[in-house]
Amino acid sequence: MSFTEFTSRLLEDAVNEFASLPGIGRKTAFRLVMNLLRRNPAEVIRFGESIIKLRSEIHYCTVCNNISDTEVCNICKDPKRDKSLVCVVENIQDVMAVENTRQYRGLYHVLGGIISPIDGIGPADLKIDSLEEKVKEGGVSEIILALSTTMEGDTTNFYLYKRLSKYSPFITTLARGVAMGDELEYTDEITLGRALNNRNPYQQ
Amino acid sequence: MSFTEFTSRLLEDAVNEFASLPGIGRKTAFRLVMNLLRRNPAEVIRFGESIIKLRSEIHYCTVCNNISDTEVCNICKDPKRDKSLVCVVENIQDVMAVENTRQYRGLYHVLGGIISPIDGIGPADLKIDSLEEKVKEGGVSEIILALSTTMEGDTTNFYLYKRLSKYSPFITTLARGVAMGDELEYTDEITLGRALNNRNPYQQ
Repeated sequence: MSFTEFTSRLLEDAVNEFASLPGIGRKTAFRLVMNLLRRNPAEVIRFGESIIKLRSEIHYCTVCNNISDTEVCNICKDPKRDKSLVCVVENIQDVMAVENTRQYRGLYHVLGGIISPIDGIGPADLKIDSLEEKVKEGGVSEIILALSTTMEGDTTNFYLYKRLSKYSPFITTLARGVAMGDELEYTDEITLGRALNNRNPYQQ
Repeated sequence: MSFTEFTSRLLEDAVNEFASLPGIGRKTAFRLVMNLLRRNPAEVIRFGESIIKLRSEIHYCTVCNNISDTEVCNICKDPKRDKSLVCVVENIQDVMAVENTRQYRGLYHVLGGIISPIDGIGPADLKIDSLEEKVKEGGVSEIILALSTTMEGDTTNFYLYKRLSKYSPFITTLARGVAMGDELEYTDEITLGRALNNRNPYQQ
């Protein structure tokens, strides 16, 4: 089926919208729309409204650039959070990844990307000025650079270090080593080499 | 990532809605929502509205039960269509499949399902009464049973034949045989047997 013939314009519109999403072809889009058609109207209207609200009512936190329903996000507003700790991440997915560890009680700073000359993304495209401002104001004792362990991540780490170290906060990066469940046989040599160099005393 | 922590309620709502669709897990749903967030607001609002309109404004054709933007669908309204031909199909997807062949210029009748005792679907659950009514009124010279070549399809064909043949329209079914591109070696024996019995004179 190539759906050259739709008997309904409304159906065609909805299929086209779903098919515009990444990884969703026209056949899948049609299947999703057929699923919506079988539901009760209130449910489908709620679906549509959640999409409209998502784009029209959502904010980016003025402090950390994280996604938020309010001007300042819940993490930045939380009085129990340690404001002297700032974890620098690439995007909001990474905020959630760190939050899900339930190990971190400081604040975040979302860069909105990573330095990548090949994609034409330089330091000026990222929220680095506001991070520098934050550090310059004082009160930040440690900056945790939690970026991807890729070439771009390393470049960004290096750039941020160069730019922020003059304000002398303690700058750290995530530990690198063998991941949980990894078999040594299949671990790449760089990871294994680093894990060996940064070995820890055995803890029972 | 299990997304136990969302920093935005709006984001979480949208992800939940997408994840309620068949074949879309929470990770994919999140990826789709992130794609919407990167688009311009007008585009996303149009997306949401197309979903709302789909469910609240769509009709089912009062003549053939096909999906339609109006009371009577474009196919039933089309004066160039042969009204004496009725193609009986299971659902609206099948209407589109037949339309896409561009070989058929008659009308349709959408049953809205197929007789399937295992799923608890009997003749009373399908739009058979209105089909009988249509045939009884006269003017229908041929009924093409275009149902799936499954056990359920065969059962439904048999039931429809029993019920409609007393009004003596010409009742036909789709030709069965070896599909385009099929290799004989992998064709099942029933299909191959039927194709052999219904062989046609060779045409150059």
